[in-house]
Amino acid sequence: MKRLLIIGIGAGDPDHLTFQAAKAIAAADVFLVVDKGEAKHDLAGLRHDLIAAHGRPPYRIVEARDPDRDRDAAAYTAAVEDWRSRRARIYESFVTGELADGQTGAILVWGDPGVYDSTLAALEEVGAEFECEVIPGISSVSALTARHGVGLTRVGRPVHVTTGRRLAAEGPTADDVLVMLDAHCAFAEAGEGYHIYWGAYLGTTDEILVSGPVAEVAERIRAVRAEARARKGWIMDTYLLRREPPARP
Amino acid sequence: MKRLLIIGIGAGDPDHLTFQAAKAIAAADVFLVVDKGEAKHDLAGLRHDLIAAHGRPPYRIVEARDPDRDRDAAAYTAAVEDWRSRRARIYESFVTGELADGQTGAILVWGDPGVYDSTLAALEEVGAEFECEVIPGISSVSALTARHGVGLTRVGRPVHVTTGRRLAAEGPTADDVLVMLDAHCAFAEAGEGYHIYWGAYLGTTDEILVSGPVAEVAERIRAVRAEARARKGWIMDTYLLRREPPARP
Repeated sequence: MKRLLIIGIGAGDPDHLTFQAAKAIAAADVFLVVDKGEAKHDLAGLRHDLIAAHGRPPYRIVEARDPDRDRDAAAYTAAVEDWRSRRARIYESFVTGELADGQTGAILVWGDPGVYDSTLAALEEVGAEFECEVIPGISSVSALTARHGVGLTRVGRPVHVTTGRRLAAEGPTADDVLVMLDAHCAFAEAGEGYHIYWGAYLGTTDEILVSGPVAEVAERIRAVRAEARARKGWIMDTYLLRREPPARP
Repeated sequence: MKRLLIIGIGAGDPDHLTFQAAKAIAAADVFLVVDKGEAKHDLAGLRHDLIAAHGRPPYRIVEARDPDRDRDAAAYTAAVEDWRSRRARIYESFVTGELADGQTGAILVWGDPGVYDSTLAALEEVGAEFECEVIPGISSVSALTARHGVGLTRVGRPVHVTTGRRLAAEGPTADDVLVMLDAHCAFAEAGEGYHIYWGAYLGTTDEILVSGPVAEVAERIRAVRAEARARKGWIMDTYLLRREPPARP
């Protein structure tokens, strides 16, 4: 049987790695590193660093080029599904062509493999037999709330986790809304009474944190975000919107 | 200045610990371990094990008894707030009475300090000067989805994180609902079309996983849960409810 480990490596700080993840890296015979292109090479760099630090030789690294995704497509979900199918072909080639029976392959995933990551969904489309094990990681959600020193949840209250596109379309659907993948600063329209806890490049030396009432800090976040994105060529950011609930009667 | 580290230690597996958390444990002069009573002593046991494994002597451990909470109170939130204020007094005594200037104290927290944990909220009520740093941990949410090999999120879709009480009162408010703190198996009423991914004692040797259509597995989960709770004296469980969204037009 072939075995594939999907290893969450945390939000950006090498020390976000868990002991479980380090052991999983040590257990792998072959790593698949999918390169998202030069713009994000410092992310790929950390993956190579972690393999070098925790891998147990002899191991091999197989590199593949991430399929391009049409980021301007009106049909966002369809574009993602198309991209995911092409990603699935990469995984399939890896499992069938690079992994021998009895061997263990590994894919290192940013953050937590369960939080807005496409690896698990793409693996469902792979037409090959293998055992799969997922190693949880520190998500950018946990990194964000930790760095701001706030809880994601409040006693007895819900949190809605959503995307920038949905926030733009629906507005905040709860007093606590965690937003990921927002390229268009939809928080600026959150409305009265919301506080924002925003973070970019969480856990890295480039980390930026801004918090405050949305009405007061929205412009600052927009400016800081644009400047950082231009300078580094990419940005990963996330934020929590929080409003005081109405007082209990 | 006094420094206090709030350290997420993961959902139950000692290997959920991050390198960051291990370094934080090594940096502490004094640990506060709040004992929840004998029923949960295997949880307190892991905290002591992690301190022994990663603490750098000389260090001290201060133990305190968790204030009782009225778990049958109709006014759930008020009961929690009362309990939290008494917990805040414990933290205040620790910071003022046990930490000297320049020293670092540490509190080890199950899972992630940001996810349905009261430590950060209680610390807000502490009337003493100290610096606080939060170390994120693997939450039971991440552990749950990893063990079931599913994503918490789906492309472009929201997830609602909520409590068993709210689920019982409101029903599922989204196609993907993550529920914590459900003593009353509210999932059984989720309605048509929901699949459940349920887990208890995640990451420990007692881990139990059950998944399937709610209509088919609800009774099994109820029985397994009751048996385990009776045998061990406590249970921590969480689950994801997921329904296929309507097909796109």
